[in-house]
Amino acid sequence: MEESYCIVGRKPVAELLRAGKAFAKVMLQSGLKSEDLEAIAAEARKAGVQVQYVPKEKLDFAAKKFSKERYVNHQGVVALAAMGKVLTIEELLSSLEQSNSTPLLVVFDGITDVGNLGAIARSALCFGAHALVMPSAGSAPVNPEGIKRSAGALEQIPLCRVENISMALKLLKAHGIKIFAASEDAETPIQECDFSIPCAVVLGDEGKGISTVVLRQCDGTFAIPMKDNFDSLNVSVSAGITLYEAMQQREAKQ
Amino acid sequence: MEESYCIVGRKPVAELLRAGKAFAKVMLQSGLKSEDLEAIAAEARKAGVQVQYVPKEKLDFAAKKFSKERYVNHQGVVALAAMGKVLTIEELLSSLEQSNSTPLLVVFDGITDVGNLGAIARSALCFGAHALVMPSAGSAPVNPEGIKRSAGALEQIPLCRVENISMALKLLKAHGIKIFAASEDAETPIQECDFSIPCAVVLGDEGKGISTVVLRQCDGTFAIPMKDNFDSLNVSVSAGITLYEAMQQREAKQ
Repeated sequence: MEESYCIVGRKPVAELLRAGKAFAKVMLQSGLKSEDLEAIAAEARKAGVQVQYVPKEKLDFAAKKFSKERYVNHQGVVALAAMGKVLTIEELLSSLEQSNSTPLLVVFDGITDVGNLGAIARSALCFGAHALVMPSAGSAPVNPEGIKRSAGALEQIPLCRVENISMALKLLKAHGIKIFAASEDAETPIQECDFSIPCAVVLGDEGKGISTVVLRQCDGTFAIPMKDNFDSLNVSVSAGITLYEAMQQREAKQ
Repeated sequence: MEESYCIVGRKPVAELLRAGKAFAKVMLQSGLKSEDLEAIAAEARKAGVQVQYVPKEKLDFAAKKFSKERYVNHQGVVALAAMGKVLTIEELLSSLEQSNSTPLLVVFDGITDVGNLGAIARSALCFGAHALVMPSAGSAPVNPEGIKRSAGALEQIPLCRVENISMALKLLKAHGIKIFAASEDAETPIQECDFSIPCAVVLGDEGKGISTVVLRQCDGTFAIPMKDNFDSLNVSVSAGITLYEAMQQREAKQ
């Protein structure tokens, strides 16, 4: 599955260029002077990417075409790209087997907010998760807004689309991957959950949490210790703390 | 500064009721059967809060009145409330002195996304921070959307509005509170930064990071260790990990 789209805004374009992304073209607003934009142009040329100066209207149009928002602040730069490959669960499992690394996966059980999707993708990449597994329907779309909110991370981490999360978890378990989830009711504190083994962390819907059917499939649940005056973290924060803990455990074991 | 407003949606209303918030009134959609709504009604009555069943249109109107979005999903419940007190920096410092606790503050240097504001408020409350210090202008508004995104946390944590962040930091430093900030360039890993002393954590703008003038006022910067393939966490995730670390250090010292 390949698709073309555009990346909008200075930070995401600059980050992706630095990460070595091969854009088809970088379009900059003609007449707009800015050190950021000059740095992007230099970086793009260095990478052999075509740089084009175009009127503001052309950027407005390109940026809007890929967003549901009425007004998109492109900050004078839009880059054209081809969407990375999306894996099936079988492709993901076979690439994990070949890679010789201990799988660490993030599974979405209904993340619907594009800001959360972006933040989770960044954390996943920062802390060494291998892929995001998400349902084909009912989760936040991986669109340019999501890619922008992920500062480009959604471009770099493999995505795996599945028809049914419950079926996907069964397949992961059959391949020796343990399924863990954060739960307010869990008795095991996060530090005592072993993330150094092949495992997947399930993240629940922002409003309803993890569905009962998915929770039943988990090999273990864990709690993030908190002060007792409030018990509710944002899902992307909870995911970030969990993946950070997983990275630390894995490094301590090396 | 007091202001009335409404809380929209099942989770935020339920959380606030559980936390003991004295709503003026809870309005439920008449004819809509739901266990969640019944639980909210029971909780409200127990707390002596007036419960009113109203037509869907009335909820649509009330929910919309307090939001910039065209469509607000109220899930059959809207609660009327009065905004909590907002402190001046002097009031905050004097309340901290009286409280006998070791100050842990979160300072916003330009957080503009309402989702990040909400997520940070939740983490602050979960991990025992005492207040959010934010500039009067240029940061995400503390409106019903923000309160909803914070699952009610913005209702419970003291907010301190300041004209100028730089001046506020000077005042905090003069009161013995150290100023720390996460920085990708910092050499000190987060675990080696001492958050058990009176301190404030500065969070920078989503796009530009912490401003140079604010960074210069910091007593120390720290880095969150990461895998080397990406170096950019969402600010609310970075804040969450920092506050979690601070809570753990404080508990270890007790």
